[in-house]
Amino acid sequence: MTIGFIGLGLMGGSFAKAIRSVHPGTVLTACDKNPSVLEDAVLDGTINTAYSPSQVKDMLALCDLVFVCLYPAAVAPFILEHQNEFKRGAVITDIAGVKVKLMQDLQSFSRSDVDIILGHPMAGSEREGYTHARADIFKGRNYIFIPLSSSKPESLQMLKNLASDIGFTRIIETTAEIHDHKIAFTSQLCHVIASALVESAEDTEITAFGGGSFEDLTRIAMINAPLWTELFIENKEDLLHHIEVFEKSLKHFKTSIENNSSGELKQSLEKVRTRRIAMARLK
Amino acid sequence: MTIGFIGLGLMGGSFAKAIRSVHPGTVLTACDKNPSVLEDAVLDGTINTAYSPSQVKDMLALCDLVFVCLYPAAVAPFILEHQNEFKRGAVITDIAGVKVKLMQDLQSFSRSDVDIILGHPMAGSEREGYTHARADIFKGRNYIFIPLSSSKPESLQMLKNLASDIGFTRIIETTAEIHDHKIAFTSQLCHVIASALVESAEDTEITAFGGGSFEDLTRIAMINAPLWTELFIENKEDLLHHIEVFEKSLKHFKTSIENNSSGELKQSLEKVRTRRIAMARLK
Repeated sequence: MTIGFIGLGLMGGSFAKAIRSVHPGTVLTACDKNPSVLEDAVLDGTINTAYSPSQVKDMLALCDLVFVCLYPAAVAPFILEHQNEFKRGAVITDIAGVKVKLMQDLQSFSRSDVDIILGHPMAGSEREGYTHARADIFKGRNYIFIPLSSSKPESLQMLKNLASDIGFTRIIETTAEIHDHKIAFTSQLCHVIASALVESAEDTEITAFGGGSFEDLTRIAMINAPLWTELFIENKEDLLHHIEVFEKSLKHFKTSIENNSSGELKQSLEKVRTRRIAMARLK
Repeated sequence: MTIGFIGLGLMGGSFAKAIRSVHPGTVLTACDKNPSVLEDAVLDGTINTAYSPSQVKDMLALCDLVFVCLYPAAVAPFILEHQNEFKRGAVITDIAGVKVKLMQDLQSFSRSDVDIILGHPMAGSEREGYTHARADIFKGRNYIFIPLSSSKPESLQMLKNLASDIGFTRIIETTAEIHDHKIAFTSQLCHVIASALVESAEDTEITAFGGGSFEDLTRIAMINAPLWTELFIENKEDLLHHIEVFEKSLKHFKTSIENNSSGELKQSLEKVRTRRIAMARLK
């Protein structure tokens, strides 16, 4: 089996390293606009063969599975531009954090002998690039797959097996709509909150007064600005909905505090505690 | 030297264990309303002698240093009620998360031969009680001291040395006003945000779609409800101020998203990233 990576950054690189470590015999190939990244990945033994963007056609002709690890807005254009270059029977997947628009954009994909199964590996890092790619970032994580209506069950099964091999523990299937709605909450809303919290700090010396809470809430604010700008705007309807619900909850706590409503505040916090513990069990 | 703990919960217990591990020869005593906690702490070798609340007078007469590890609102009443029972030359400290009101309440303390130095060890856990007390929770943490105007420099130095011995790495002194203002941001605001975020989740199954962000932002929502109700209301002016500033920042991001202002959003996120990295260096 030959697997190809379009884009060998933090995610593509981590996938390649993770697959290399569990399936040493698999042929791994990669295409990246940065030649030094490709050189590093060949030298460290992660990939077998490197292709420059101008040679991508040669690579696609060989790959049974292609991971498109580009920024969200670049995924559909890449797949559509190269649709005639994929190997017969190939499976294409991606890692973009927003899926509804991608799904729509892929409507014009016309290869019935090639399967597209969108994917969202729920893992990452505040560090970017191949240099920070690590084989173990997927351990214990969630992986969400969104098959197209035409996807073959065996293609999905192959991806699920691979995901499980490299450490993902909770692998679910859903629709693009449900994905975007849920992710707007667990991921995009959290990044907006973390960013707003850092912005609202009086100064950067505030961490002298920190006990870990502020640090934990804002680690993800060491954000990849262009990527998250794309994600926030691409998923804006769901995200704005969740921001509004969150604002109401915040207002609810604020009002209890303003009114010295100890009893109500204590009750709300007890409920929150119980809820959060129930969520932790599901992790 | 004899050290006494009033309250042997998560914090009192962790202090006792940490001091026991670095100063095996120090006499440690404790008073707690829960007899089984005292029994455990004697049996596991953490404390030398246990005192029930009715025997606290006998304990205070022996202690050179007393850690009052009670809920914030109980600290001043305890110190004032027992003010004539402290040993001549004793140093009293506490761990409460709000200091201005405590400082006011202690105005009527009349022992000039006893030093009070308020303290806030910036460490904790979402787990409560002596069972979860651990010697290592202070490693690499911040400790904030608020001396009274009458405090002797050598008393403060003794506390700072002890703090450093048990693992605190950044030990600062400040006023009750500055403490409450800063802590309302780094600690109380973060707990309000985490709680509002858990409250605003559609269901507890949401963690199936989690990639770590939601989990990190809400770990502190496994909250001790009575304690945090006290802290939120006791520090309400500073906390409401910070909630409002945060609401404005959130609104700022929301508006950029609503208006599809990619350029502005990207710029704000770049600034946030730079700020957060600067904060991390200070940790």
